[in-house]
Amino acid sequence: MITVVSVAIVGAAGYAGAELTRLVLGHPLMDLVTVTSSADAGRRVSELYPALAGCDLVYVPHDEAAIAEAVELAFLAVPHTAAMAITPGLLEAGLTVIDASADFRLRDPKVFSRWYGVEHVCPDLLSDAVYGLPELWREALPGARLVACPGCYPTATLLAAAPAIRAGLVISGRVVVDAKSGVSGAGRTPSAATNYVSAAESITAYKVGSHRHTPEITQGLGDLGLTDVRVTFSPHLVPMSRGLLSTVYLEVDPGLSVGDAHAVYAAHYAGEPFVTVHAPGVMPSTSEVRGSNRAHIGVATDGTGTLIVSAAIDNLVKGTAGQAVQCANLALGYEETTGLDRFAPVF
Amino acid sequence: MITVVSVAIVGAAGYAGAELTRLVLGHPLMDLVTVTSSADAGRRVSELYPALAGCDLVYVPHDEAAIAEAVELAFLAVPHTAAMAITPGLLEAGLTVIDASADFRLRDPKVFSRWYGVEHVCPDLLSDAVYGLPELWREALPGARLVACPGCYPTATLLAAAPAIRAGLVISGRVVVDAKSGVSGAGRTPSAATNYVSAAESITAYKVGSHRHTPEITQGLGDLGLTDVRVTFSPHLVPMSRGLLSTVYLEVDPGLSVGDAHAVYAAHYAGEPFVTVHAPGVMPSTSEVRGSNRAHIGVATDGTGTLIVSAAIDNLVKGTAGQAVQCANLALGYEETTGLDRFAPVF
Amino acid sequence: MITVVSVAIVGAAGYAGAELTRLVLGHPLMDLVTVTSSADAGRRVSELYPALAGCDLVYVPHDEAAIAEAVELAFLAVPHTAAMAITPGLLEAGLTVIDASADFRLRDPKVFSRWYGVEHVCPDLLSDAVYGLPELWREALPGARLVACPGCYPTATLLAAAPAIRAGLVISGRVVVDAKSGVSGAGRTPSAATNYVSAAESITAYKVGSHRHTPEITQGLGDLGLTDVRVTFSPHLVPMSRGLLSTVYLEVDPGLSVGDAHAVYAAHYAGEPFVTVHAPGVMPSTSEVRGSNRAHIGVATDGTGTLIVSAAIDNLVKGTAGQAVQCANLALGYEETTGLDRFAPVF
Amino acid sequence: MITVVSVAIVGAAGYAGAELTRLVLGHPLMDLVTVTSSADAGRRVSELYPALAGCDLVYVPHDEAAIAEAVELAFLAVPHTAAMAITPGLLEAGLTVIDASADFRLRDPKVFSRWYGVEHVCPDLLSDAVYGLPELWREALPGARLVACPGCYPTATLLAAAPAIRAGLVISGRVVVDAKSGVSGAGRTPSAATNYVSAAESITAYKVGSHRHTPEITQGLGDLGLTDVRVTFSPHLVPMSRGLLSTVYLEVDPGLSVGDAHAVYAAHYAGEPFVTVHAPGVMPSTSEVRGSNRAHIGVATDGTGTLIVSAAIDNLVKGTAGQAVQCANLALGYEETTGLDRFAPVF
Repeated sequence: MITVVSVAIVGAAGYAGAELTRLVLGHPLMDLVTVTSSADAGRRVSELYPALAGCDLVYVPHDEAAIAEAVELAFLAVPHTAAMAITPGLLEAGLTVIDASADFRLRDPKVFSRWYGVEHVCPDLLSDAVYGLPELWREALPGARLVACPGCYPTATLLAAAPAIRAGLVISGRVVVDAKSGVSGAGRTPSAATNYVSAAESITAYKVGSHRHTPEITQGLGDLGLTDVRVTFSPHLVPMSRGLLSTVYLEVDPGLSVGDAHAVYAAHYAGEPFVTVHAPGVMPSTSEVRGSNRAHIGVATDGTGTLIVSAAIDNLVKGTAGQAVQCANLALGYEETTGLDRFAPVF
Repeated sequence: MITVVSVAIVGAAGYAGAELTRLVLGHPLMDLVTVTSSADAGRRVSELYPALAGCDLVYVPHDEAAIAEAVELAFLAVPHTAAMAITPGLLEAGLTVIDASADFRLRDPKVFSRWYGVEHVCPDLLSDAVYGLPELWREALPGARLVACPGCYPTATLLAAAPAIRAGLVISGRVVVDAKSGVSGAGRTPSAATNYVSAAESITAYKVGSHRHTPEITQGLGDLGLTDVRVTFSPHLVPMSRGLLSTVYLEVDPGLSVGDAHAVYAAHYAGEPFVTVHAPGVMPSTSEVRGSNRAHIGVATDGTGTLIVSAAIDNLVKGTAGQAVQCANLALGYEETTGLDRFAPVF
Repeated sequence: MITVVSVAIVGAAGYAGAELTRLVLGHPLMDLVTVTSSADAGRRVSELYPALAGCDLVYVPHDEAAIAEAVELAFLAVPHTAAMAITPGLLEAGLTVIDASADFRLRDPKVFSRWYGVEHVCPDLLSDAVYGLPELWREALPGARLVACPGCYPTATLLAAAPAIRAGLVISGRVVVDAKSGVSGAGRTPSAATNYVSAAESITAYKVGSHRHTPEITQGLGDLGLTDVRVTFSPHLVPMSRGLLSTVYLEVDPGLSVGDAHAVYAAHYAGEPFVTVHAPGVMPSTSEVRGSNRAHIGVATDGTGTLIVSAAIDNLVKGTAGQAVQCANLALGYEETTGLDRFAPVF
Repeated sequence: MITVVSVAIVGAAGYAGAELTRLVLGHPLMDLVTVTSSADAGRRVSELYPALAGCDLVYVPHDEAAIAEAVELAFLAVPHTAAMAITPGLLEAGLTVIDASADFRLRDPKVFSRWYGVEHVCPDLLSDAVYGLPELWREALPGARLVACPGCYPTATLLAAAPAIRAGLVISGRVVVDAKSGVSGAGRTPSAATNYVSAAESITAYKVGSHRHTPEITQGLGDLGLTDVRVTFSPHLVPMSRGLLSTVYLEVDPGLSVGDAHAVYAAHYAGEPFVTVHAPGVMPSTSEVRGSNRAHIGVATDGTGTLIVSAAIDNLVKGTAGQAVQCANLALGYEETTGLDRFAPVF
């Protein structure tokens, strides 16, 4: 018998938390009991997010014990380091933890501390955490107690690269990832870079060579079977609220045709409810997936021995909140698509 | 017993038609049988609108007889004049017709021909048509066979003006409506005005004094009880894909407080599933309602004897496709909110 | 003989200050000696504004004495209250002061304190200050020592209303001003409202009935000859970096034709270097004036006794920095257009 | 003695033609005599481009003989194939031709016909044409009679790649160019892809492997000294009106430090009036160069043996019209920067 799970969203007032709130409120098998926020405790959800008018919940401060008492499953949408601080306690109290932060994504605690500048406080949990990218590693999710949801850039990038790597098409560990994100990826806190006047009508690369999703992409490409991985990762900020496009350049045999490459991708994602592979040479737009949990993928070749793959997602849905719900569904034994719209507004 | 209705969308390849397609595909009591398009017949829905990937329907040419044969209910999302050409036949064949065009909105055929430049071909049907704005005239909808869905501007404007007029607060028929629409309001056909370079980062008034929604607003204000109506209607084009804001200026007693005005609005819309009245002086943003069937309303006063009311909707949902589904639900005896999301993405 | 004037920009790191910096750097008869900023002192202009790459100036802290020593003319682009604190000293030291703040715009110190919440510290200077809107009150500017540059909303609104009022066409003091501004109008400090995600793809009214430009518009309309002025002023935030559109609704004789109204406007602004009146019924877009010191105006009527006038400016140029330079040119006896481009990029 | 040159702009009604019109109107040593347009003949420039209000010119049809009669220099802003049709005649009549089309960029007529699908009609002129990218090949421009102005993508890409190649840092002919353009790059003709609703809030790759600027980039990289060139070129469409960013990935020694790479770039562009190299690791935004003839460049390394260089230009100024004027200045013996603003609006 399928039962309803009681849910807390920890860090619910940020953008990812707000999308989680929306999705859990609309989920037929989830009961949203608690939404927490340190900065906005005491305010109504519908005051901060008028799109959720009608939701009467009020943010409360984070309180590990109260959460453990109140619910069976916790989504963590807090910044890195805040997640690992409370995860051991929540697990011990018997909760399922779906963590949207970076704290449990990297299996090697030394890599974590090198890129995040702090020591991991519960490195022994790293091997228990399941990396939650269902289309690539679905089998690990049923029954998982701790899910590390991938970053938005790694989600799009690994979905773009996986079929070619698994099919043995990629002949070099040298991978260029030129990725483009909407501004919500930077979070809700206003800053000079995310101010409308700075971000509108402009594009810029940022954190080239130093973005913290780099080691996660590297780990994922290795897990897919690529050897001697050397990732060049250049994120760009694009004037759009939502959306993420990762254009990935993979070294392949110059004779590989776009038709053959496409066939590999189409076969790999056949039957996936949330992934569409476009016709050969047709590249996806991020507006196609705005508001949905979908990933749309296009492949192209140009005769130089480079396979170009472009994957579009909504950074806040498939890139964060939607994928977290998808992972929770699998962990709990629900139908994978429960509570995730089949279609979102057409643009 | 509630039964599933078979549905056609006539003119399904435009923006409103595409949103209707999305909503009907997700509606638990509607079965989308046919989507028609004269310009795009033969193409897949998912090719034109990749957001609907997974929908296998193919556009077919309009064929009144085939539609009448195939379905019980037809949504018309064709341009004006095309709707009145096929409506009599569809009604005669026993279909329920939910018309999103302008053809049955104006009760007086002379007003229609003056503003639309053509004679009405079935003026006798005008008195049968129900004007489908449920929050203002819900009682007329159950059992309706022909529903004329309001224009997007009239929807927001009448929702903004109704409570004050009905409460007798408005002391003059002189009404200024300064409205602002996203670019999708102009439809899918590319034009110089809707080209990205023209529309981005710019705002302009257009068709001031000559927009065809003017007589519809005038008729609606009169229906609400305003006398000697003289509407000044200035639509503006705003750099956003979706969204419509109507800021309405009503002449009232200078002593009217914002609190009293707000109380009238809150009472009028109490219990409405799709309308939210913000706190006194708090004005809505269109992003709050993007993708949803909601209308958000704010009221303000300034001591000059003017009541300022601002109403935000998504022009393609509450302004067109969502309201059409809402009306269909009522006409068919379904729960009014069926198939209409409670929440849309938070921005 | 025309001589070059030495110039300081006080508060040069904000958006208006940066545009002033650009204009003064390109002005053939101005020598930019000093740029001050309390928050960004020590940083290079070109670091904050890479568009000014090649400018080697470094922001220094405000220092009234140093400024008085160093230059003959000071542009003040500081927030209100900061301007009136230093203006008396600068005037005493013999400088010409072109103030872009609100401190000297309102002639009545009681009105100032009511709207700005502080007492004016040099009310005796208010009557000396010249309100710097050259197209309406040019004759007061030659030789002026203290110029109060109008706010951005009053600039567009008064330019839109003036010809009709002066021609005696306006028959009521009841004026509705529905104005729309780009996000740079809110200044450079990041905030929740100006964050890209909040502001993009959305429009909202704000500060309805309480915006501080209201008394300035009221004063200006009175100066133009309107009696019993009752202004309803509704500013809106529009998703664009620059640009301001003021759509003004004036009560006139219902028989006034658009042609006659247009003739009044065309005659009023004939020969003005920075004002264009469009053909009857043709309304301006803000993109037409982006980056330039121009104001473009359109007029329409609709038979209800309302004259609709829409004026478009760039809020940072004609609305602030450009008009300040225009006023300085007139005050100094330079050709009015000196240093102000005849044309800006076409969109 | 410097004399004023009489100028025609052929194809003046498109976006590049309009920017050329603006620049030539403001050029102190150019006299704009004729603007031609086949589609808009008979209309005023200021009607099509209200930003040029005050310009009284009217578009006339293309007429090679009339142009040859009327002026000494012709800017060609017509589509490819239209330029080569009239260039021989104009040259014979003694005119200087500055061609902004693609017709004379590729030296090999076979490469031209392969990518453009037509035979070149005057292949013998190809070797006479000077490729007009002053910062890289300035010496060829003085006295040139026929200048082929580079495409927008090649301009940014070659400026980004040149210093590293010329300094011998690049160890492989395998080059990935991930480029992003604003929508004006697609020209003025409205289309489904450039409609606001399609282009806003979205990014997509297009024409991957098949864009016509590919052979031009390949030719240019070879001219700079790179051997065995294999360019992967992926253009992307970005929601902005203007601006182009080319992020170029070059294979280098893994030990190359960002400081050393930066030093090479800074030295290469030292003294260039229109090029700025940012500090090591600081990447340019396109908004920095909006409206100006500048190119801003940033360099980064990541330890994988890849040098990442990002170059930002305004596609219509440095990418087209501005560079055309810069080339004309050099061809005519004028100061290179004449008529080109030192600064544009700060965003």
